[in-house]
Amino acid sequence: MTTGARVLLRTLLDGGVDVCFANPGTSEMHLVAALDAEPAMRAVLTLFEGVATGAADGYARMADRPAATLLHLGPGLANGLANLHNARRAGTPMVTVVGDHALDHKPLDAPLESDIDALAGTVSVRVHRSTAPEELGADTADAIAAAAGGISTLLVPADVSWAEGDWPVGTVAEPAPPGRGALDADGLESAAKALWSGEPCTLLIGGTACRERGLVAAHRIALATGARLLAETFPPRIERGAGLPPLTRLAYLGDAAAHQLSGSRHVVLAGAPSPVTFFGYPGKRGDLVPEGAAVHRIAEQGAYGAVALEALADLVAADVAPDDVPRAALARPEIPDGELTVVTAAAVIGAELPEGAIVVDEAITSSLGLPDATAGSPRHDWLTLTGGAIGFGLPVATGAAVACPDRPVWALQADGSAMYTISALWTHARENLDITTVLFDNGAYAILRAELLGVGAQLSPDSPARSLLDLGNPRLDFAALATGMGVPAERATTPAELAGALRRAASEPGPHLVVAAVPPLVP
Amino acid sequence: MTTGARVLLRTLLDGGVDVCFANPGTSEMHLVAALDAEPAMRAVLTLFEGVATGAADGYARMADRPAATLLHLGPGLANGLANLHNARRAGTPMVTVVGDHALDHKPLDAPLESDIDALAGTVSVRVHRSTAPEELGADTADAIAAAAGGISTLLVPADVSWAEGDWPVGTVAEPAPPGRGALDADGLESAAKALWSGEPCTLLIGGTACRERGLVAAHRIALATGARLLAETFPPRIERGAGLPPLTRLAYLGDAAAHQLSGSRHVVLAGAPSPVTFFGYPGKRGDLVPEGAAVHRIAEQGAYGAVALEALADLVAADVAPDDVPRAALARPEIPDGELTVVTAAAVIGAELPEGAIVVDEAITSSLGLPDATAGSPRHDWLTLTGGAIGFGLPVATGAAVACPDRPVWALQADGSAMYTISALWTHARENLDITTVLFDNGAYAILRAELLGVGAQLSPDSPARSLLDLGNPRLDFAALATGMGVPAERATTPAELAGALRRAASEPGPHLVVAAVPPLVP
Repeated sequence: MTTGARVLLRTLLDGGVDVCFANPGTSEMHLVAALDAEPAMRAVLTLFEGVATGAADGYARMADRPAATLLHLGPGLANGLANLHNARRAGTPMVTVVGDHALDHKPLDAPLESDIDALAGTVSVRVHRSTAPEELGADTADAIAAAAGGISTLLVPADVSWAEGDWPVGTVAEPAPPGRGALDADGLESAAKALWSGEPCTLLIGGTACRERGLVAAHRIALATGARLLAETFPPRIERGAGLPPLTRLAYLGDAAAHQLSGSRHVVLAGAPSPVTFFGYPGKRGDLVPEGAAVHRIAEQGAYGAVALEALADLVAADVAPDDVPRAALARPEIPDGELTVVTAAAVIGAELPEGAIVVDEAITSSLGLPDATAGSPRHDWLTLTGGAIGFGLPVATGAAVACPDRPVWALQADGSAMYTISALWTHARENLDITTVLFDNGAYAILRAELLGVGAQLSPDSPARSLLDLGNPRLDFAALATGMGVPAERATTPAELAGALRRAASEPGPHLVVAAVPPLVP
Repeated sequence: MTTGARVLLRTLLDGGVDVCFANPGTSEMHLVAALDAEPAMRAVLTLFEGVATGAADGYARMADRPAATLLHLGPGLANGLANLHNARRAGTPMVTVVGDHALDHKPLDAPLESDIDALAGTVSVRVHRSTAPEELGADTADAIAAAAGGISTLLVPADVSWAEGDWPVGTVAEPAPPGRGALDADGLESAAKALWSGEPCTLLIGGTACRERGLVAAHRIALATGARLLAETFPPRIERGAGLPPLTRLAYLGDAAAHQLSGSRHVVLAGAPSPVTFFGYPGKRGDLVPEGAAVHRIAEQGAYGAVALEALADLVAADVAPDDVPRAALARPEIPDGELTVVTAAAVIGAELPEGAIVVDEAITSSLGLPDATAGSPRHDWLTLTGGAIGFGLPVATGAAVACPDRPVWALQADGSAMYTISALWTHARENLDITTVLFDNGAYAILRAELLGVGAQLSPDSPARSLLDLGNPRLDFAALATGMGVPAERATTPAELAGALRRAASEPGPHLVVAAVPPLVP
């Protein structure tokens, strides 16, 4: 005799899903109780569902396999949606388990009843409601299989969880690894012709193509054909630093991005979406493909981006060996003198970033100098805000640290964005995760100040509009917030203090937070 | 010349909507900029959208008119959905303004693009996307009119906001107040016959019927007919305390609620939904209407519940005058000696609750003794967690305090629930709101411990399941969190300390937080 809940956990474990980021409620209590019978499942408690979903995103970006989340009914899923949005844009595999009312309770329209299916549909590649305990094992296996393509949501009614019987555990089919057989020969041929044409080409890579294997192939193509190599603005994970092929990303600001792409007659896409501006602006084009240029796609976002690039490289760059590809030299900045600014702080981070670090970048305007300052730091991974839904950094760091317990995680975090999911710090402490959060405290939604200037608003000091972008009244004390959640914290006001704080954090196990007090980029 | 954004604000102001709880982003920058031209609009910044939507709920529950919210695209709306769910269950009027991508940018599938309509549809009585600046005034007026029935969502593309022209301001039709003409004569007759039948009847009231006018009519009916009077478990707002007719609510726990309703042959509903348990449990009925009992509905949830009760009272209780209705006497508990527990803390709150207070109750298991302990406190309002989506208390208190600046607001807040929207404290400080938060710190999701016991799980100290409901590792320091967001805080460990802290809070303007350290109800 077993229960639906235990069959679900057993199937997850058999399917290689052994971490669950959870914020459960009453309708999930049987799933929680089942944890005692399946100790191989690591359940990580979060205090807010957006931390759980962001953690599952960070976990899968680093582990290359899905974690599960456990969420409570529609409102619990709703709280997790913003980071599910980012995960959807990242193409992250994830098994999202949402507890639902018992099947016969659902029509009663109890207070927590809502349209879970509609919510889940906005982010999921598949939404399935299991309606019988004898099917829950197979439903779970199907959900795991579907997660290879993105967020797979399994709705589990409470009575399907609590039902006792000899229910079968599901069997997860091993998905075939994507190989050259799956490649689009027409796309490759069209891209090869463009690269051979002698006309200016840009090779725009994204998704998993931003890891070493894809970077090597992309550089071979660029070396052989003269194509310009760029990455999408916000790749899920970039392998970079000393020893790795360098990579320039498309700029966030539309004018700068248009400049990077200007003159291209062909844009070859490998795992990146066709380039568009983040927002529309009056009188400006949103589509960044230069007018008249042709677009050639060799890979959708996903695991086969590197495979497609290698196939293309074999067509157009057979004479260029992987060893011919440039690699970044180890070259750290010096610790600067003077004021702590986003520029000097970036230099400190470049100087101190440890070997094998995982950087989670939600520094927003404070990220300005970071890519250059860290380009020659020891090899590391860089995770970005793929979907633009802020509140991603501290949760994603959580999951990355759970996936890679032997690697230091650095969360580079803007102040305004941090407050959306600040309770992630408690999970950092609870799990004793090796996460160093650098909290860029500029006291403003600085990026919105820039945007407000851009719409021509007058920013007098007492302007109600300007006031709405100001975080300085009262000033948030992030060191107090961190210590209140069990994370030791200190505040740095000079580059030397920041370097010292980062070294102290690195010398002790567990999480730390360092407030980097910087002036906002837009005063 | 004006802009769409200014027309939207002007129409809101003309329609009586002069408060906007905002967490804007780039697509709302023209709406933000327009605030400088319309200083009558009070824009209240929140650090998370769930604070904005909860605040709009609390505002309208107290002001009896809608506030606006300003949210950023799909992820911003998603972050606000849990408290919109509660507002939907409360029947709260609200104008939810969601900025969207410019119309020609939307098809480009930029990173922040998502299915906003699907999200909004789960909580809204009406969702409308304005597609032309010349229609935005009328669209806004229609959105305000629709808000009389609940959450009215207006999607505003950025280019509709920024467009310059001589756009017309919308005119809001004054909605006709609901009167007896709108009543359901058949429902009233059926209810009257039930009450005359001599068979046991329960009169179950909810929504606005829980205010004085409805309470008086309900008590007249109960006195004349012998019907049992109960309120729904979680009414949006109860007027109660000394001088007001007393009211017992249906219990949260299904067994207790079933006991309250047992023996009833008729259930008359006035503004309350038909009673059901909060969750389904194995082998238990979810429908709380006793088997074989008849249900008679005289009013859906909404403003006319009191009108319907008065009409019913005139039919069945013409001989009972409003002056015959019982009223609670002023009777405060004494400050107890001994340990601070949820029972002694409730006595302290009953003893100290000031005249005219607005109580926002998200104390969950720590609310056990509160209704009795405050029944004879001076007149006050009591706002409850209508939809069960936790993280409601601190945001709703925000809005209630903005609506009623001359009244003290007491947020009675559980620790676990507080963390979902903890950044509301910053808005308390920023707006210098007269909110006293009593933070019941028991170090656990205590209600879930009870639920886990109920499913028969073994709760050994090292049980993974039990650990998942434990907030004690590390213990959250809510005083540090509050002071980190600008709210003065202290910690009370005895009834006398709690009383002293509440008096100090009452003697100073602005927000305060008092941590009440209590043992969890379920150890």
